[in-house]
Amino acid sequence: MLPSTSRPLRFETIALVGKYMAAGFSESLSEVAAFLKKRGHRVVIEAETGRNVELAGTTSMTAEEIGKHADVAIVIGGDGTMLGIARHLAPFDVPLIGINQGRLGFMTDISQDTMMSVLNDMLDGKLESEQRSLLEGSVLRDGKNIFHALAFNDVVVSRAATSGMAELQVEVDGRFMYNQRSDGLIVATPTGSTAYSLSAGGPLLHPSLSGLVLVPIAPHALSNRPIVVPDTCNIVIEIMGGRDVSVNFDMQSLTSLQHHDRIIVRRSAYTITFLHPQGWSYYDTLREKLHWNEYPSVAGQLK
Amino acid sequence: MLPSTSRPLRFETIALVGKYMAAGFSESLSEVAAFLKKRGHRVVIEAETGRNVELAGTTSMTAEEIGKHADVAIVIGGDGTMLGIARHLAPFDVPLIGINQGRLGFMTDISQDTMMSVLNDMLDGKLESEQRSLLEGSVLRDGKNIFHALAFNDVVVSRAATSGMAELQVEVDGRFMYNQRSDGLIVATPTGSTAYSLSAGGPLLHPSLSGLVLVPIAPHALSNRPIVVPDTCNIVIEIMGGRDVSVNFDMQSLTSLQHHDRIIVRRSAYTITFLHPQGWSYYDTLREKLHWNEYPSVAGQLK
Amino acid sequence: MLPSTSRPLRFETIALVGKYMAAGFSESLSEVAAFLKKRGHRVVIEAETGRNVELAGTTSMTAEEIGKHADVAIVIGGDGTMLGIARHLAPFDVPLIGINQGRLGFMTDISQDTMMSVLNDMLDGKLESEQRSLLEGSVLRDGKNIFHALAFNDVVVSRAATSGMAELQVEVDGRFMYNQRSDGLIVATPTGSTAYSLSAGGPLLHPSLSGLVLVPIAPHALSNRPIVVPDTCNIVIEIMGGRDVSVNFDMQSLTSLQHHDRIIVRRSAYTITFLHPQGWSYYDTLREKLHWNEYPSVAGQLK
Amino acid sequence: MLPSTSRPLRFETIALVGKYMAAGFSESLSEVAAFLKKRGHRVVIEAETGRNVELAGTTSMTAEEIGKHADVAIVIGGDGTMLGIARHLAPFDVPLIGINQGRLGFMTDISQDTMMSVLNDMLDGKLESEQRSLLEGSVLRDGKNIFHALAFNDVVVSRAATSGMAELQVEVDGRFMYNQRSDGLIVATPTGSTAYSLSAGGPLLHPSLSGLVLVPIAPHALSNRPIVVPDTCNIVIEIMGGRDVSVNFDMQSLTSLQHHDRIIVRRSAYTITFLHPQGWSYYDTLREKLHWNEYPSVAGQLK
Repeated sequence: MLPSTSRPLRFETIALVGKYMAAGFSESLSEVAAFLKKRGHRVVIEAETGRNVELAGTTSMTAEEIGKHADVAIVIGGDGTMLGIARHLAPFDVPLIGINQGRLGFMTDISQDTMMSVLNDMLDGKLESEQRSLLEGSVLRDGKNIFHALAFNDVVVSRAATSGMAELQVEVDGRFMYNQRSDGLIVATPTGSTAYSLSAGGPLLHPSLSGLVLVPIAPHALSNRPIVVPDTCNIVIEIMGGRDVSVNFDMQSLTSLQHHDRIIVRRSAYTITFLHPQGWSYYDTLREKLHWNEYPSVAGQLK
Repeated sequence: MLPSTSRPLRFETIALVGKYMAAGFSESLSEVAAFLKKRGHRVVIEAETGRNVELAGTTSMTAEEIGKHADVAIVIGGDGTMLGIARHLAPFDVPLIGINQGRLGFMTDISQDTMMSVLNDMLDGKLESEQRSLLEGSVLRDGKNIFHALAFNDVVVSRAATSGMAELQVEVDGRFMYNQRSDGLIVATPTGSTAYSLSAGGPLLHPSLSGLVLVPIAPHALSNRPIVVPDTCNIVIEIMGGRDVSVNFDMQSLTSLQHHDRIIVRRSAYTITFLHPQGWSYYDTLREKLHWNEYPSVAGQLK
Repeated sequence: MLPSTSRPLRFETIALVGKYMAAGFSESLSEVAAFLKKRGHRVVIEAETGRNVELAGTTSMTAEEIGKHADVAIVIGGDGTMLGIARHLAPFDVPLIGINQGRLGFMTDISQDTMMSVLNDMLDGKLESEQRSLLEGSVLRDGKNIFHALAFNDVVVSRAATSGMAELQVEVDGRFMYNQRSDGLIVATPTGSTAYSLSAGGPLLHPSLSGLVLVPIAPHALSNRPIVVPDTCNIVIEIMGGRDVSVNFDMQSLTSLQHHDRIIVRRSAYTITFLHPQGWSYYDTLREKLHWNEYPSVAGQLK
Repeated sequence: MLPSTSRPLRFETIALVGKYMAAGFSESLSEVAAFLKKRGHRVVIEAETGRNVELAGTTSMTAEEIGKHADVAIVIGGDGTMLGIARHLAPFDVPLIGINQGRLGFMTDISQDTMMSVLNDMLDGKLESEQRSLLEGSVLRDGKNIFHALAFNDVVVSRAATSGMAELQVEVDGRFMYNQRSDGLIVATPTGSTAYSLSAGGPLLHPSLSGLVLVPIAPHALSNRPIVVPDTCNIVIEIMGGRDVSVNFDMQSLTSLQHHDRIIVRRSAYTITFLHPQGWSYYDTLREKLHWNEYPSVAGQLK
C-alpha cells in the first residue's frame, strides 16, 4: 500500500498524546519525547495530557492547535485513546501513529517494546499510510438540526434498558428500507466493524471498503440481518416508537430522542490517516485480535 | 437511479428465454411474444427454450447469438433461470428483464399478472437500470490454470459430507488472511449475498456496493466471521487439508481439488445489467423476500 | 400428551380475563360469557377487565380470588396479556386457555373464528394439558434481599443505552462460569426462548425441556455463546462494572442495581398449566410463528 | 458433584489406551504403566495401542475385553482418541480418565505435566464422576433397519458438496416439526455441543442437561434456529430431497442415503462415565477452551 494521504508526509513537528492515567505512561512519554528531540524533531504535547504529566521544556497545544501545527501525532494508549483524539483531529488531516503499552489494539498497533526502532524507521519514511472514513450525524427535530457530531466507529440508536423495543424507520437515499423493532441500530464504519458492531453480529469490513454497515441490535424479526451499503449513502433513521431512545456517537456524544426525531448519517468529508510500520497488514491485526489460527494445523483433528 | 449501462438502451431485437418445464410457461411465452411483435419489436427465442416450446415464426438463437444480436433479453422463470442465462450473456452486456410466474424472486421481480403493462412502460423507456458485478475464478494446479469459470452469485470451496474439515489458506492481495478450518468458504457478490451466503451467516450487501464477502461455512474458530473486502481484491484460496474438497461456481460448474491447488477469485471485467420497472427499489425486494415488516407496527407489543 | 396438571381438571367456575383496550374485545367477551353460561358454567370476570368492559350479572374477582376460586381462566388477548395474568395466577395453579383476536400467539393459540367449537370440545375434556416452568429471582445487596419477583419468560440484566458495557460475573451452582462484558444477560425459560432470547441469538427450547438458557446480549467475547443448563441450577449474576445496570422480570418489574449486587435466579416452585385443543403441537405453533416451510418443497430450486 | 456411576468405583485393573502415533506417546505410556504397577494396580493395554507401542510384560486386551475386565480406562491422547474408545466401551460402563499430551481437550482434561500426582489422588478416590449421554441411530429403508450405530458427539445428516440443498423432514415424538432445506442437520448430545454443533451455530449444553440439540447447517430459512429438546425424544429425519445425502455418527461410521430413508435418533441406554480430578468444573474447561475472560476486567475500556 503506497502512502495515499493527501498532504505529503513530513515530520518536523510531532505531537504526543496519551492515556495519562495508565501505569508507566509518564516514563514512556518521556522516553519517546527524548528520542524524538534527539532525532531533531520539534515535540509538542497535547494540552490535557500535558496537564497530567510532567514533560519539561515541551510546548503544550490544544487538539485544534495540534491540528494546525503538527505534522503527525503519536498516540500512546489504547484504541479508546486513539478514538478520542482521532475525532478531534479529523478536520485537520494530521496523520496518527498508535503505540500500545499493553496488548496491541486494532488502531494502536506498535508495541512499547519495539517502539524506538519502529518509530525510527517510520520517521525515516519506511511506513504504510492508509485512510479511514468517518461518519457525521445530525439529529433533526421538527425540521431543525438540534445536534451534530462525528463518529469514527459508529452511530448507535438504542432504547433504554427499562423500556420496550425501539421502533425505527430506516430510509437509505430516500428509499424506505424497513421499520425495525429492536434494541437499537448501529451504523458502523469499517473501523467500527471490529467494535460494538461485531458484538451485535455484524461482519468485518476491510478498512479500504467504501461501505458502511447497518447492524440491528437484537431485532424482533430474525431476518433483519446486517446490511452493508455504499458509504456514499444518506441514511435516515426516524424514531417511530419506544421510550427513552437515544443516539450516541462512538459511545461518547449522546442525545435523547423524541418520536419522529430523524437521525441523518452519512460519510464525513474528513478522513483519518493512520501510519503503520512497513509491511503492516490489516489481516495480521485481525488474526492477533480475534485469535485466528491458534490451533495446530491438522485438519479434522478436533472432531 | 439513472440508466448506467454502457451501451445506450434500445429495444429493436428482444430475446425470450425461459424455464420451459414450468406449468403455464408456454402460454406466458406466446402471450409475451405476440405482445412484443404487436409493438413492432423483432422477437427471437433462445435455442434450448425454443426446442421445448412451440413458438411459430420465431427465430431461434444460441446464447452467444443472443449476446451478439439482441438488445435485451426477457427471462421468464425464477432466479435460477436468470442465473443460468445471465452467466452466459455476461460477455455481451445484454440487459435482462425478469418475469416470475410464481412468487417474485430477487432477480425476477415482475409478476406475470402485471407483465404486459409493466413491459409496455419499460420498453417505452420508463425503467431503472442497474449493473451487477460477477466473479471470475480459476484453479491453478502446479502453476497451470486447469479450470476457469464465471460466477454471478458465488464461488464456493467446500469439503465432502463424508470427510473431515477442510483446511483453507486465504490470501487477499498477496497478504495472508488466515488458515481456516471449516466446511468450506463462500466468496459472494452482492447479488449472491441473498443466496447461500445468507444461509451460512453472511450479511446482505447492497448491489451497488463495490465489495465481496468471504463467508466461512461452519468454521472451527468462532471468531472466523464474515469479512467484506473491496471488489478490486484478488483472493487466493489454497487447499491445505481435507479430503474431497471441491469448488463450484453458482452451484453449477464444479471441479475436484487436490492439496495445494489454488483458487483465484476476482471480480470479472463483465457486468450484468438488470432493467427494472420505474420506481423499483432493492429494499422493496428485500422486504418482500425476507418478510420484513409483517408484524403490526405497535412498538413494544411483543415484549 | 396426556393431561399432567397436578389437580384434576374440572370446569365449574371459569374466569375471563382480557386485553380490554383491543377493538372488538367487548363483543368477544360477551359472546364467550354467554356461551359459557349456556353450557352451565359459572362465569366470573377479572376485576380490571370488568372495570373496563360491561358484562352484566357477572361476578368480578381479583387475580388472587380467581386463583382461589376459578377452575380455569380463559384469556382473550395476545401473548402479553397471557404473560401478565399467568404470573399472577402462578401460585394457584389455575390452568389457562388462550384466545387470540388477531394473529395467533405462542401462548394464545386459539383463534376467535373457531373459539366456540374449540372451547366446547375442550370443556368437554377433549384437550391437551402441559406445564410450563417459571423463574423466581431475588436481588441481594449487602447480603439483604431487596427485591423478589417471578418471571415467566425471562430475567434480564442490562446496561443503560447511555453507558459502557456491563460487566457481569456469573456463577452456576457455586461454580464460577465467567466474567462477561456485554449489553446484558438474559436468563430465559423454554417459554421465554421464543421471546427476547431469540432476538438476542438464543436457541429454541422445547417447553418440556428441563432447562434454562443464558443468552448474552451483544457480548464482547465472540465465544460467549448461549448456554443451556439444567433448570435445577442456581444462577448468581453479580454486577462487577458498568453504570446504570438494571434487572427486569418479563420486562415488567424492574430494579436498579449497584456494583456487587447479586441477582439470584432459579426455577420457581410454581408452574403454569396451559390447556390446548386436542391434537395441539408446539411444533405447529413454531412453524406458524417463525414462517417455517413457506417455500415450495422443491429441493435446490432456490440456488 | 458426588460420584454417580452405577457401579462402585474400584481400580484393580486399569486399561491404557492411546494415540500411538503422537510424538512422545510411547514414553508417556511407559511412565504411566510403571507408575500404576508400582501402586499395585494390574495394568492392561488396549490391543491396537499395544501393537504399535512396546510395553513389556503387559497383557493386551480388545476393547470388548477391556469392557469386561477393566475397572477404569486411562486414555492418553486428544478428544478424538477419547471419542473413539468411549463409543466402544459404552456398553460396558467402564469409567474413563483422559490425559492430554498437548493442549487440554474438552474430554482429556489432565495435562501430562501433572498427571502423576493427579492420577495418584484420583486413584486414591479423590475424584469427581459424571455421566454423559450417547445417541443411538438407525437407518430405516423400506421399513428395514439397514444401519445402526452409537454416537457420543452427534449424528449428522448432510448433503454432498457437489449437490443442491438437502430437504429433510423432521418429526419429534411423532409430531411433524418441519421440512428443512439446508446443507444438513446435526443432532448433538451435550458432549457434542462443543464440537461441530458449535461451529454450525448451536448453543452450549451443560453435560448434565437432559437435552439434545437439533442444529440446521446453513438452512435456507433464516428462522430455522437451533432447537433443544428433551433427551427422551424420538427424532425421525426423513430424506425428502437432495442428491448424495449421507449420515455419519461422530464423523466416523457413515452411510449413504436414498430418498425416503428414515434416520431414527434417540438417547442410547448406555452412558459414559468420566472421572475428573477433585474440584473439576465444566465451566473451567469452557473458559479455557473458548478463551473466555482473557481481557482485563475493566468495564467499558474496549468501547
